[in-house]
Amino acid sequence: MNDSKSKFNKNGLNRFGMISIIGLKGIPLIKPGDDLGQIIVRAAEEQGIEIRDEDVIVITQKIVSKAEGRLVSLKDVIPSEFAEHVARNMNKDPRLVEVILRETSRIIRMKDRRLIMETKHGFVCANAGVDRSNVEGEDFVSLLPEDPDKSAREIRSRIKELTGKSPAVIITDTWGRPWRLGHIDFAVGIAGMSPFRDYRGQADMFGYTLRVTRMAVADELAAAAELAKGKSEGIPVVIIRGYDYPKGDGSAKDLIRPLERDLFR
Amino acid sequence: MNDSKSKFNKNGLNRFGMISIIGLKGIPLIKPGDDLGQIIVRAAEEQGIEIRDEDVIVITQKIVSKAEGRLVSLKDVIPSEFAEHVARNMNKDPRLVEVILRETSRIIRMKDRRLIMETKHGFVCANAGVDRSNVEGEDFVSLLPEDPDKSAREIRSRIKELTGKSPAVIITDTWGRPWRLGHIDFAVGIAGMSPFRDYRGQADMFGYTLRVTRMAVADELAAAAELAKGKSEGIPVVIIRGYDYPKGDGSAKDLIRPLERDLFR
Repeated sequence: MNDSKSKFNKNGLNRFGMISIIGLKGIPLIKPGDDLGQIIVRAAEEQGIEIRDEDVIVITQKIVSKAEGRLVSLKDVIPSEFAEHVARNMNKDPRLVEVILRETSRIIRMKDRRLIMETKHGFVCANAGVDRSNVEGEDFVSLLPEDPDKSAREIRSRIKELTGKSPAVIITDTWGRPWRLGHIDFAVGIAGMSPFRDYRGQADMFGYTLRVTRMAVADELAAAAELAKGKSEGIPVVIIRGYDYPKGDGSAKDLIRPLERDLFR
Repeated sequence: MNDSKSKFNKNGLNRFGMISIIGLKGIPLIKPGDDLGQIIVRAAEEQGIEIRDEDVIVITQKIVSKAEGRLVSLKDVIPSEFAEHVARNMNKDPRLVEVILRETSRIIRMKDRRLIMETKHGFVCANAGVDRSNVEGEDFVSLLPEDPDKSAREIRSRIKELTGKSPAVIITDTWGRPWRLGHIDFAVGIAGMSPFRDYRGQADMFGYTLRVTRMAVADELAAAAELAKGKSEGIPVVIIRGYDYPKGDGSAKDLIRPLERDLFR
């Protein structure tokens, strides 16, 4: 990747000073067992896009979960007594609550029909990432991938196999936030990059040391990509080109604030 | 703007399916009284960019605050007794704590040297938006604009005056998040757009109604723009082109979760 380095400055802009967010069209409905890496490479080709080392490929969690068969039929779920109690209090489907609890390692808030959970991975989000939307069949729900970083690494390897290129890969999910209305996309799995761009210790424009700023660029890339997705239509994969992402072997789990440094858990 | 509508589909992608994030170079150091609208129009012209109605212009809060003279010299600040107590406990400058308290309407958390405040505007962020970085003079700190929506509207009007075009304008600040490490940029003021793209009531790909998803696109645009900024260098203004932002007269305050619907305040 050294040959491409000179095209970028340290802000991650290419020589044209432009970052492009390109939605990949023509991704088919994904089924368990599908080869996502190959599907992405083909969709890019059909759109006339040659994948590059310096691209970031941003993939919606939902299609990764489907390809990995992380789907549960509620018909097969027997709720625990606790799930029944919670469901009754919150006016929810006890089978759905049961699936959510199975994905949960810690309950953060349980109030007003909202279940804010810490998932087995350590992410804090509503319903532990269990979701009904864009899943075929009324009784099916999707779970987050078992290990989203591993999913990202596997897709990245497959893309490398097929194209010789090693773009960064980000898997995203759509979450609400405390204090603010509306959802945005967050990074839940990454490969080939660090989730942070670190300015700590660098001087600002006036020579003072920037003390605290470490930008969560994996989350910013996730949010940027969402702009080209749209919820109800079939654009689950986006290519971001022209951003010199921080190379490395980071994990999306690095984005999780450790419990002892968290004032809101 | 009707003539441009056909270029976009309802996901906000232009006919090339691409969103561009363009950092504006050559913005000079901003001083109180500077005409930001004119400075932005000139910087765009020098870069060969003609501003369009369909652009989103994303501006870092810091230069807006400077242009509006929202700077405080700590030398002029006499800390209250409460500010002295807090500063002693937290090993902070009591004058800085005093300025922060003056910007605060409610203290959300006060722990581990961190002051998470609700600002007079209703935003929840560290230090009530008071910041030392990228401000000239060691003793000066910057405050958030008094009314960031109004600041955005004024810049938008000035751009319209000079170019005849009415792009959307977003003013951003850089904040940390609960549960996650690293900072990202958020929208604190907007003009000419709604902060949300609303999918509630729409059907997903399989005909099920999407029940809860309202995307906070103003925040996603803020985060996307940050990728082209960089903290310590002079790119405080970014143009996002090719995203069909939701038109309207929204306010960034619409993004604030009402207290009674907030589980974390």
